[in-house]
Amino acid sequence: MIESFFSPSSVAVIGASRDPHKLGHGVVRNLLKYNFKGEIYPVHHTASEILGLRCYSSVAELPDEVDLAVIVVPARSVPDVVEQCGQVSIKQVIIVSGGFGETGEEGGRLEEKVMEIAGRYGIRMIGPNCIGTIDTHTPVNTTFVVGMPEQGEIGFISQSGAMVAAVIDWALGAGVGFSRLVSLGNQIDVTETEMVELIGGDRETKVVTAYIEGISDGRAFMETASAITKEKPFVVIKAGQSSKGAEAVSSHTGALSGSKEAYSAAFRKCGIQEARSTEEMFDFARALAWQPLPKGRRIAVLTNAGGPAILAVDAMEKAGLELADLSENTRSFLKARLPKAASINNPVDVLAGSGPATYTLALEALLSDDQVDAVLVIQAPQDWFLPESLAEVVGETAGLHKKPVIASIMGKASVDEALTILHKRRVPNVSFPERSAAVFLAMAERREWLEMQQARAEELQKAEKMTKVDGFRQDGVKGSAAAIMGALEVDEAAAEKSVKNKDWIGLAESWGIPVARQKLAETQKEAVDAADELGWPVALKLFSRKQTHKTDVGGVRLDLADEGELENAWEEIHQAAEKHGVDLEGMTVQKMIPEGEEVIIGVRRDPQFGSVVVFGSGGTEVELYRDARTAIAPLCRMEAEQLIDETIAGRKLQGWRGKAPSDREAVVEMLMRMGRLAEAHPEIVDLEINPLIVMEEGKGAVAVDLRGSVADREISVID
Amino acid sequence: MIESFFSPSSVAVIGASRDPHKLGHGVVRNLLKYNFKGEIYPVHHTASEILGLRCYSSVAELPDEVDLAVIVVPARSVPDVVEQCGQVSIKQVIIVSGGFGETGEEGGRLEEKVMEIAGRYGIRMIGPNCIGTIDTHTPVNTTFVVGMPEQGEIGFISQSGAMVAAVIDWALGAGVGFSRLVSLGNQIDVTETEMVELIGGDRETKVVTAYIEGISDGRAFMETASAITKEKPFVVIKAGQSSKGAEAVSSHTGALSGSKEAYSAAFRKCGIQEARSTEEMFDFARALAWQPLPKGRRIAVLTNAGGPAILAVDAMEKAGLELADLSENTRSFLKARLPKAASINNPVDVLAGSGPATYTLALEALLSDDQVDAVLVIQAPQDWFLPESLAEVVGETAGLHKKPVIASIMGKASVDEALTILHKRRVPNVSFPERSAAVFLAMAERREWLEMQQARAEELQKAEKMTKVDGFRQDGVKGSAAAIMGALEVDEAAAEKSVKNKDWIGLAESWGIPVARQKLAETQKEAVDAADELGWPVALKLFSRKQTHKTDVGGVRLDLADEGELENAWEEIHQAAEKHGVDLEGMTVQKMIPEGEEVIIGVRRDPQFGSVVVFGSGGTEVELYRDARTAIAPLCRMEAEQLIDETIAGRKLQGWRGKAPSDREAVVEMLMRMGRLAEAHPEIVDLEINPLIVMEEGKGAVAVDLRGSVADREISVID
Repeated sequence: MIESFFSPSSVAVIGASRDPHKLGHGVVRNLLKYNFKGEIYPVHHTASEILGLRCYSSVAELPDEVDLAVIVVPARSVPDVVEQCGQVSIKQVIIVSGGFGETGEEGGRLEEKVMEIAGRYGIRMIGPNCIGTIDTHTPVNTTFVVGMPEQGEIGFISQSGAMVAAVIDWALGAGVGFSRLVSLGNQIDVTETEMVELIGGDRETKVVTAYIEGISDGRAFMETASAITKEKPFVVIKAGQSSKGAEAVSSHTGALSGSKEAYSAAFRKCGIQEARSTEEMFDFARALAWQPLPKGRRIAVLTNAGGPAILAVDAMEKAGLELADLSENTRSFLKARLPKAASINNPVDVLAGSGPATYTLALEALLSDDQVDAVLVIQAPQDWFLPESLAEVVGETAGLHKKPVIASIMGKASVDEALTILHKRRVPNVSFPERSAAVFLAMAERREWLEMQQARAEELQKAEKMTKVDGFRQDGVKGSAAAIMGALEVDEAAAEKSVKNKDWIGLAESWGIPVARQKLAETQKEAVDAADELGWPVALKLFSRKQTHKTDVGGVRLDLADEGELENAWEEIHQAAEKHGVDLEGMTVQKMIPEGEEVIIGVRRDPQFGSVVVFGSGGTEVELYRDARTAIAPLCRMEAEQLIDETIAGRKLQGWRGKAPSDREAVVEMLMRMGRLAEAHPEIVDLEINPLIVMEEGKGAVAVDLRGSVADREISVID
Repeated sequence: MIESFFSPSSVAVIGASRDPHKLGHGVVRNLLKYNFKGEIYPVHHTASEILGLRCYSSVAELPDEVDLAVIVVPARSVPDVVEQCGQVSIKQVIIVSGGFGETGEEGGRLEEKVMEIAGRYGIRMIGPNCIGTIDTHTPVNTTFVVGMPEQGEIGFISQSGAMVAAVIDWALGAGVGFSRLVSLGNQIDVTETEMVELIGGDRETKVVTAYIEGISDGRAFMETASAITKEKPFVVIKAGQSSKGAEAVSSHTGALSGSKEAYSAAFRKCGIQEARSTEEMFDFARALAWQPLPKGRRIAVLTNAGGPAILAVDAMEKAGLELADLSENTRSFLKARLPKAASINNPVDVLAGSGPATYTLALEALLSDDQVDAVLVIQAPQDWFLPESLAEVVGETAGLHKKPVIASIMGKASVDEALTILHKRRVPNVSFPERSAAVFLAMAERREWLEMQQARAEELQKAEKMTKVDGFRQDGVKGSAAAIMGALEVDEAAAEKSVKNKDWIGLAESWGIPVARQKLAETQKEAVDAADELGWPVALKLFSRKQTHKTDVGGVRLDLADEGELENAWEEIHQAAEKHGVDLEGMTVQKMIPEGEEVIIGVRRDPQFGSVVVFGSGGTEVELYRDARTAIAPLCRMEAEQLIDETIAGRKLQGWRGKAPSDREAVVEMLMRMGRLAEAHPEIVDLEINPLIVMEEGKGAVAVDLRGSVADREISVID
């Protein structure tokens, strides 16, 4: 099956060429040059031999059971070639040729034709407009790109062929090995999600990396990725995160790049780690593939010079790592063995005169210290010994322990040999020590995520014992959250009706979200009656389906204690509405609720990932401070807590500057309910509670204002 | 004079050695190997010859007029050697030897002895505990470090010798030239400030770079740096910005690393650009040294592949750069010459099949387009032509225009030759295109800063014509600000008295800062009388010299309309004070002032840079949102405006969500006054107005609450 893209038993190259400047030549050359062990069948209508291989004049002539075909003919001939492949039962095809959807409508029609033919024969396709696949372990190289990385443990999935070419050249220069590489081209058949499954499942691949412009089916991608990340790290760089970048993505591949926040939330939910640059992605991948994970965030720095260590410490603290406190034991061991003027506190400075033996003793001591989770070894250039000998001892000592070590043998002109040794010993090197901080952080975060998954699984088990869960699957992203939330009594009929009537208050209440009691009044008299019924003091708010930000037009008056104040407020809002041309439909009278922190909870539908939950600072300043974070619905308890803790709003809930802590637990509950609500009513485009007033601990939270919108037509639920 | 450190006519090496493993050998070797043209005098007590040079047995034996001595003897012998240098009139000395202040008290005493001797003879010293100086143009290399960078235009001042060694090895590997390098060691004599002056003034140096741990005299440094940055870019990396990093700095060199905010503010005030990593510092330096500055922020991207261009665009937008809108002319020129499927919008994608000629035409068109300020040229690896040929045409075409070009010839294994060509043509290359964004930004910011200086000079000229400025120098940081602010009538006697009495309201008022009228009441009766006098409604606030955050303990009640409300409030505050154990000294009654935005203005004394002004969001949430920025006092109008515009508080003042704009002008005025106030009263440790209520445009601003503190003893003013 599609595994044949990386380990075919035989490969036909349709459009093979004798001209070394043609792609069809490059593919045959790479298959030969990089030692593909299976049969290679070049197809060319006149040539009898290419690069010493017997040539076939047409696909029809090929022997039985060709496993994989690489098609390198002009776009207009591709449909015929695919048809011929079908006729001789070739089930896997890589279409290298460009000139399809990426060039416009005509090309798009050609793609459809190819898809129709492939569908008839059950052919699976990578491409078109791609550069094919590499597996360094099979080995097989179906690309025309010059060079192939060494064998290694990093898999790379790319929605840009150029990135694969660049990474190959970079990997060769940097001496970093890869397991599998693939460029997906226009993705008319095999998608990034299938590739994640395939490369993620590969035994030789220890870390999956990906350059991603867009995802075709967000939820399916998340399911697949979640399964992979339980076993191995998955690092991505997401292109098209800026508005201009998104435009460029869309003109590059036609993919919708979707919202940056939703992508980040989806990556986080399934344990994918995002890198900020290509360089960083491979820094992370190398360390994750080569080194064990740290148990915690306590880093020790071992150096022969003060300056570079200080820069590393600055970067570590900024990244949220800690400088390990060395144990008494370690310090007395070091004190007895290092030069008198050396620093035996972290950073440990062995001074410029020390050699590989001193480094060995110090590194061994640090790695043996229970209070140290990982070590950075810095060597500023010196004239005493070859950096190679340091590389050897660092590599050997690191190999004797189960803690990660990163080296920073600084410089460039004199360190090539040392880097080769370090790489052989699987110790990553950074040429300036600051760069290690992001790498240690990525390793620590990977560890923490795995631990969270473990805790979550236990939470789930406990929850399953306690509650009977109906109507939700027990597995996957959705099931676990449902189980953890427990059974939720929802008046489904009432909820459905509320959505139809755009009665957001009714909807919230049927999902168990408390809303401040309120009544709509069309006259001043009705308003006073309503206040008498609800109880004084009250708030009075402009009501208009078209006006979302009531405060902006002076449409809110608070804490009205009696009839007189209410009447004044009525007049003022009336005038304000007139002044701003608001279509006033009445006013809502709301019982004033106790003081509390104001937060926002919202849900909205993302085109790629379905329902997302948004949490942040409420009130009128939300847009200024940009204190909002997004998570993919539904949320389990831990995800809800994480969402809260990432915001300043969350810090406020903990109590600050003498204020008592607020009822964070009520917010957790409400976030989970809102997530479930959004999943249950996919026609809701957005629904926002702003503010949600969170009272003191144990006293709950109450929605004061809600607004929402539904899609005009039914939206299909991605599942 | 100290210029001799970089262009000595002759050099004595005291402690020269025949043993290739000794530093004293390395210094003689480097002087010879790197072609120092003057006389070299090795001093060694027994050897007659070292590396073919005649050896002197003592300093006393040296011929007259030795210009510079490099001392590489054990620390304990250094005082004698310096004494001998004095006796034979050597006036410049580099002390390489370690074992001084960095090792503890004993070493510190040795330093003092050396300083005393040098003082007697008027000897200038670099070090001790340093690696000396390099000038590639003289040429002279007084270090023992292996290798010397090529001739170039970048000067590097370092407070870490290891960083110099690392940079030399990096520069050799990366093919980046330098003009001068120096490591300053313990700085017992020549300081970073003198070095900035010396290297900044060097004709061959086009860009100054520095690794800085601490600055000895903040104001002097700023004066010097301000003069340099008018002529050439100055890029620094500041080490010790984290709390652990600062500790490490202090144990490394004993320098106080001071507050990160004050350093950043000082750097900004004098036009120094801060880099976030060593790598970034030299990315900036290379581009600033080699390429012209862009006229604006509109960048064009020229590429042969979509993916890498999208990553570049993402990074650029994030950095605040713009993607240039290409002119109609450019687009039709490109349309006629590029392949049909190419993208003729920015990013311009010439597609994988295009070669150096197509790149040339496209780059020429982009550089000729008035709507383009700078160009990034990306080449993903391909098999059609050698990257060297692209390097040639990019270099040549860039050289014909006055706009900056950065290349990203991607990859590592196959690009060495291309990079050599680019460097020869003075075009910087980044191996992944994302890295170009920070570089373009640094170039644009340099340009913008120069323009701001120009505008400021004009503003100053105008102001000088309008006002007679007394008591302030007309030049330098201080003078210009004073002139721009105009003459300020300050009751100096009253102000002095206020500071003595810690009467912050009085002080503010004598400096023309309006304060909300208020009275201190010790009884309820007095409070009511005060309110009658000030006018209702009033605010009532707890008064205690020991309690800084009144709201935290429930010590503030607002908008009290009558006697009844005031009496209730009095009781409540009384109870709150008791509950929190506050030492209640009375309550202040303040006339309620109109609604407005709440901001904070503060001044405080930084140990390195003297008075700084802080501005940010006011009220109770300031600590949560961390919306505060710092600038060095005094401020000119532009600096005050910049300070405001960098904060969210500043954005609020512009009016938001329907609110009218606030009186930003009043805040500008007050920031300038506060800066002058702080300069005039150096005994003030801090003074904070929180909140300053800023009313609608034209209606001014008023300080509602002030707190401050003075130093117990006189603080010396750094000037």
